[in-house]
Amino acid sequence: MIILGIDPGTARVGYAVIEKKDSDNLNLLISGCLEAKNKEQKDRLGEISGLISGLILEYHPEVLAIEKLFFAKNTKTALAVAEARGVIINSANSLNLNICEFTPLEVKVAVTGYGKAEKEQVKKMVCRILNLKKMPKLDDISDALAIALTACYTNPKLSNKH
Amino acid sequence: MIILGIDPGTARVGYAVIEKKDSDNLNLLISGCLEAKNKEQKDRLGEISGLISGLILEYHPEVLAIEKLFFAKNTKTALAVAEARGVIINSANSLNLNICEFTPLEVKVAVTGYGKAEKEQVKKMVCRILNLKKMPKLDDISDALAIALTACYTNPKLSNKH
Repeated sequence: MIILGIDPGTARVGYAVIEKKDSDNLNLLISGCLEAKNKEQKDRLGEISGLISGLILEYHPEVLAIEKLFFAKNTKTALAVAEARGVIINSANSLNLNICEFTPLEVKVAVTGYGKAEKEQVKKMVCRILNLKKMPKLDDISDALAIALTACYTNPKLSNKH
Repeated sequence: MIILGIDPGTARVGYAVIEKKDSDNLNLLISGCLEAKNKEQKDRLGEISGLISGLILEYHPEVLAIEKLFFAKNTKTALAVAEARGVIINSANSLNLNICEFTPLEVKVAVTGYGKAEKEQVKKMVCRILNLKKMPKLDDISDALAIALTACYTNPKLSNKH
């Protein structure tokens, strides 16, 4: 099973594609971060939509794993991120992916076993699990990796699928 | 010039397509309300995306007029509406429409001349301006008509376009 993990944002969208053969055999296919250079939100949404469709057409994931959104201090940003999330979910759903949503707490528990883990701890565990030689530079990338891993670990339907 | 006005929501999306020949010659081509029957947000987003693309392909509008979102009391609803707005804006932008966003205040001022107008007053003015014989039953429809009319009246670039 192949999983596309997305850390949604507006200016930056982290992505990771992980292939799961079984729980002990997880293989990172690609990870990265789209830096949406367009200043206008409508053009950012277009870039994000293109990213998601492109990754799906290239790697054929069956599952989109994406973080659930809660209210940040900056509500204007939260609404803009929600717009991006809508575009991401719709792109994946229209290409028949299953959609899995996780809270930040669920992601931390799945990856580190501890719901209040710091970013750095999440990053370390992600590297250990996937045998990465280098730490991802951007939090957006390690967050996308962590979300994809959460889908690998926590959803029994997914785990039994292959 | 043809304008597509949208009142964004999740369970219901009001829409209106108005043809503007000049400021005194406004013609309603179609209006209605999508009642997204799917309970899951991902499927609602798919229905909304299909609605927007369908209207654009049938009526060839050059402009999408859509309400800007502010925080309602129910923040969970606000985030879901923002996801729908993202899908609507991206569908229209990918089909090369100009995107115009208006605040509720701007819409009320444009249609009634009064920023604190009640829903009923907006409805009456919309009917008068477009010579409608029947009042729209749903607020979602009259709101979409009002947003489309706001684009007809307020944007000088649009007004001068044809």
